[in-house]
Amino acid sequence: MRKSIATVSVSGTLTEKLAAIAAAGFDGVEIFENDLLACPLPPEAIRARAADLGLSIDLYQPFRDFESVPADLLARNLRRAEHKFRLMERLGADLLLVCSNVSPGAIGGDDLAAEQLRLLAELAAGHGIRIAYEALAWGRHVNEYLHAWRVVRMADHPNLGVCLDSFHILSRGSDPIGIEAIPGEKIFFLQLADAPLLAMDVLQWSRHYRCFPGQGNFDVSGLVGHTLNAGYAGPLSLEVFNDHFRQADTRRTARDGMRSLIALEDTLGDPAAARLGSPPGGAARGFAHPAIPSGFAFAELAGTGSPGGGTSGTGSSGTGSTGGGSLGGVLAALGFARTGTHPTKPVELWEQGGARLLLNATGEAPALVAIGLDSPDPAGAVKHAESLLSPVLPRERAPEEARLDAVAAPDGTEIFFCDGSWLSDFAPEAPVPGKITGIDHVALTQPWHYFDEGELFYRTVLGLSPQGSLELPDPYGLLRSKAMSAPGGAVRMVLNIAQVGAGDIPWQHVALACDDLVAVARRLRTEHPELLLPIPGNYYDDLDARYEVDPELRDLGVLYDRDERGGEFLHLYTVTVGRVFFEIVQRIGGYDGYGAANAPIRLAVQHSGGN
Amino acid sequence: MRKSIATVSVSGTLTEKLAAIAAAGFDGVEIFENDLLACPLPPEAIRARAADLGLSIDLYQPFRDFESVPADLLARNLRRAEHKFRLMERLGADLLLVCSNVSPGAIGGDDLAAEQLRLLAELAAGHGIRIAYEALAWGRHVNEYLHAWRVVRMADHPNLGVCLDSFHILSRGSDPIGIEAIPGEKIFFLQLADAPLLAMDVLQWSRHYRCFPGQGNFDVSGLVGHTLNAGYAGPLSLEVFNDHFRQADTRRTARDGMRSLIALEDTLGDPAAARLGSPPGGAARGFAHPAIPSGFAFAELAGTGSPGGGTSGTGSSGTGSTGGGSLGGVLAALGFARTGTHPTKPVELWEQGGARLLLNATGEAPALVAIGLDSPDPAGAVKHAESLLSPVLPRERAPEEARLDAVAAPDGTEIFFCDGSWLSDFAPEAPVPGKITGIDHVALTQPWHYFDEGELFYRTVLGLSPQGSLELPDPYGLLRSKAMSAPGGAVRMVLNIAQVGAGDIPWQHVALACDDLVAVARRLRTEHPELLLPIPGNYYDDLDARYEVDPELRDLGVLYDRDERGGEFLHLYTVTVGRVFFEIVQRIGGYDGYGAANAPIRLAVQHSGGN
Repeated sequence: MRKSIATVSVSGTLTEKLAAIAAAGFDGVEIFENDLLACPLPPEAIRARAADLGLSIDLYQPFRDFESVPADLLARNLRRAEHKFRLMERLGADLLLVCSNVSPGAIGGDDLAAEQLRLLAELAAGHGIRIAYEALAWGRHVNEYLHAWRVVRMADHPNLGVCLDSFHILSRGSDPIGIEAIPGEKIFFLQLADAPLLAMDVLQWSRHYRCFPGQGNFDVSGLVGHTLNAGYAGPLSLEVFNDHFRQADTRRTARDGMRSLIALEDTLGDPAAARLGSPPGGAARGFAHPAIPSGFAFAELAGTGSPGGGTSGTGSSGTGSTGGGSLGGVLAALGFARTGTHPTKPVELWEQGGARLLLNATGEAPALVAIGLDSPDPAGAVKHAESLLSPVLPRERAPEEARLDAVAAPDGTEIFFCDGSWLSDFAPEAPVPGKITGIDHVALTQPWHYFDEGELFYRTVLGLSPQGSLELPDPYGLLRSKAMSAPGGAVRMVLNIAQVGAGDIPWQHVALACDDLVAVARRLRTEHPELLLPIPGNYYDDLDARYEVDPELRDLGVLYDRDERGGEFLHLYTVTVGRVFFEIVQRIGGYDGYGAANAPIRLAVQHSGGN
Repeated sequence: MRKSIATVSVSGTLTEKLAAIAAAGFDGVEIFENDLLACPLPPEAIRARAADLGLSIDLYQPFRDFESVPADLLARNLRRAEHKFRLMERLGADLLLVCSNVSPGAIGGDDLAAEQLRLLAELAAGHGIRIAYEALAWGRHVNEYLHAWRVVRMADHPNLGVCLDSFHILSRGSDPIGIEAIPGEKIFFLQLADAPLLAMDVLQWSRHYRCFPGQGNFDVSGLVGHTLNAGYAGPLSLEVFNDHFRQADTRRTARDGMRSLIALEDTLGDPAAARLGSPPGGAARGFAHPAIPSGFAFAELAGTGSPGGGTSGTGSSGTGSTGGGSLGGVLAALGFARTGTHPTKPVELWEQGGARLLLNATGEAPALVAIGLDSPDPAGAVKHAESLLSPVLPRERAPEEARLDAVAAPDGTEIFFCDGSWLSDFAPEAPVPGKITGIDHVALTQPWHYFDEGELFYRTVLGLSPQGSLELPDPYGLLRSKAMSAPGGAVRMVLNIAQVGAGDIPWQHVALACDDLVAVARRLRTEHPELLLPIPGNYYDDLDARYEVDPELRDLGVLYDRDERGGEFLHLYTVTVGRVFFEIVQRIGGYDGYGAANAPIRLAVQHSGGN
């Protein structure tokens, strides 16, 4: 299945774009006119550059406001087209995208549109060029793909076909099943974009919020299936206008786009994939996902050897700038104990109940750097991740050490796929009993501009399902937060990004599960009150107004949430050490959320130096 | 006229907000509940803090989803209200904002809403509290202000009135004249926000895009007029939810808000203003604006003594890292000559035709730092600017030097109001003839997040009129660009900001007017080709496709634009020196734009190191 991408989808100059697109493994490109106009290279040199990079030029675009015009304007438009055809000959492109006319001056009537497009196709034929006519969602008269097809059918010229664009079709709520009514050979091109569902002007939506397939809410895969059923055999081509991509790293965005197409291909039925020459079996991967994790094996915190992060191994309350002691100190206060040490690395295993944390002395400041996931097939999981362009991590290990299968997530987190053998490296002592039963979730900070890429990684590589997206105000901006989970909540992750407020979020955290949060809180309040994030009394006044909750929650600094079905959530936060803090949570009655209503309180306290 | 602002309108913690709001000169605040919940101070301490700062607490808000509910929920909602009334007593607030219910479970019928609001008002009365009922634009049943008034009238309780919010009224397109039908004493509160006209979900529009009056497209002033005519005597209170303000400097935003209210007050008719105790004459200022400039006196470029910026005074083409020589070198090449030197400062006057540029040797890198404007009343202009909270610049000068009246714009540019006497300081030689006739416009980079503030400054302080806003793609982001001008185009400014792509725009420029751009370009092409920004041939191929233009433009690197009425624009760019470049423009046939269609080409060449 050939894969292409429009140059407008990534940032940079045209030559930077071409290099990044080739490096990501695309077969071809759509040359976006503005990229060419601003490029100092003449068309012949761009053609040669693309050829050197192994990229075909699949489309030149867009040609605007051509059809349905008065006679004098038609003459000017044909002159304009003739210039573009000559340019395309120099560029070595033989397919031109013509968008439906958006001008208020455009005249209605399919006859006129068809007649003028037929003239254009005839002119194009003289240059060996074909015309792909596309219904823009905001076209003046033609804005539905089946309308564009009616006009193309009326024009009845071999050099005229339609271009389908998933955004223009799905943003209008059109049913893509109608695509199967179009003969495959008359579908000259297929452009793919996804988008979040937004209630806004469709032009603005299209120009700023498109994203790669799988990153939004459209069923792009279903649309591709209909197009393949129609007999389309051309490339799948990404065309995305996105404010984040405009400022993101060119190569990274191109790789992200390629990952989305590989994942999309995976979701297509075998017959369709087979018709396009994909290896069999790809489609089956969706059903027996080798990587869906069954639980957290561990979370690894690095930088514990740095000032403020040292593993003191005792429950002492440090008085460093973090005000909360070392990571090891916090863990000891929470009831963890050091149960093992790695034979060759400066890494300690700390345990309580089913919760395992690795404290790694290397690193500049305390930070959450790696997650171990219990995996049914670690080697298969890595292979799957690699097929989705994730870098596999080389792991130097001594001959007697356990095998480690790991990849790097786009946010830099190392993801280990574990079968249990890793634990033997640490020769741990007997498990430590305690109130804490395991890791409930980890909150991973996503780098600025790369939220969609991170989500697509966790969804496709790990098979996690999105649980919904939230905006959380903090005193100096807005966070966007998205929870993702494996079936049954065996693994939960929360991805956070500073949506408003440039720069990265300063904190990340590990949330530990327990069955009796009040008991844990009582012990902490008595023995280590300095480790608890102080919660304002005003919060509890409001809680009292909304619910009748145990007054002890106020004394303990425990936060509370309730869902619509009566499920309850108790949670507390520790102070921050380096970039890391801990949350302890108790889920009651099937509560499946993360206490989002309380997050702004927590953020405000953290910002105001409450630790 | 009392002025208030909701704490949600500015960034920071509650105590930071209160301090900034007081510093900006507000009389009171609306306490936004989430700000209070996250504040470690108890309500009594917040009350004391506000009192110490001289701020009254005019409103506590919001109380949501109260009315039009089943009996069991009503009991819970009354209990919730009782808690809030006790909180308000501690806080010293006696007015509560109740928003119309947005819950899908709300029951329709004005009778029920009125009956339940009456109960609430009665409960409130026991605490000495009044209820201001507001129709949210997205309320489930009540979403028009006159509907809220009908319900309030039906409820008929002295402690129940309406709260009017300009956004909720104007975003729905409701006619604010109906406000005059509401008795003034039943309008308990007036919240003001402006907004740009956006076709999007009104909730998202409200939560992210509100701005201060005068910064958007609503006629907020007209709405205030109707409210004053109705007999309202309460404060004008700003309530703005804005993604930029969330991350902006707290004090700066508060001052920006105060400036918007002062400017709004200026636009109100005298009778209304007089009724509210404003000094007479304020309203007249709108008609005889003391600051509307009649032309550019000069533009000042600083940092010319820095490496690459030195004023060589000759036409030599420097070979510094900028590749384009010094500022003085560029000016000499453009036909300028040094005609004078300041007696006490390291500042040179360079002239050609009516264009005057000051080159100031101080400063770290070449940058546009000041603008001199021909002003009919320099002293009055400064006084007007000062009344709008603009910092007046102290100018040390020798006794024999000309008086300088200047203020600082929010973007840091120094604005001088000039009567012509300044020129005598330089004792200039005879004017230099040349093709360049004057300064056409200056393009000022606005700091990140402060576009609206800058626009409001130039509009209210200088009396410039906005000409429209544009988005311009560049290879690594999107620019937002807004042109503003004095009547007849005597003074034109273009404000630019990096809308997408964090950080500030690296360039600013001075555009020089001429009557024969081709002649200027020919001379430059012959004598100083290295100073011309190279324009790609692909641009001219496209120009040829669209228009029939003189082929010499391609050879000369002159860009071309045409407006709908046949007006034409010729322009060219120099390479960049430090942060500054020059544009030379020729307007033909009443062309009133800035060649925006060509800006992406220019940006791409600049980014690709085309200089």
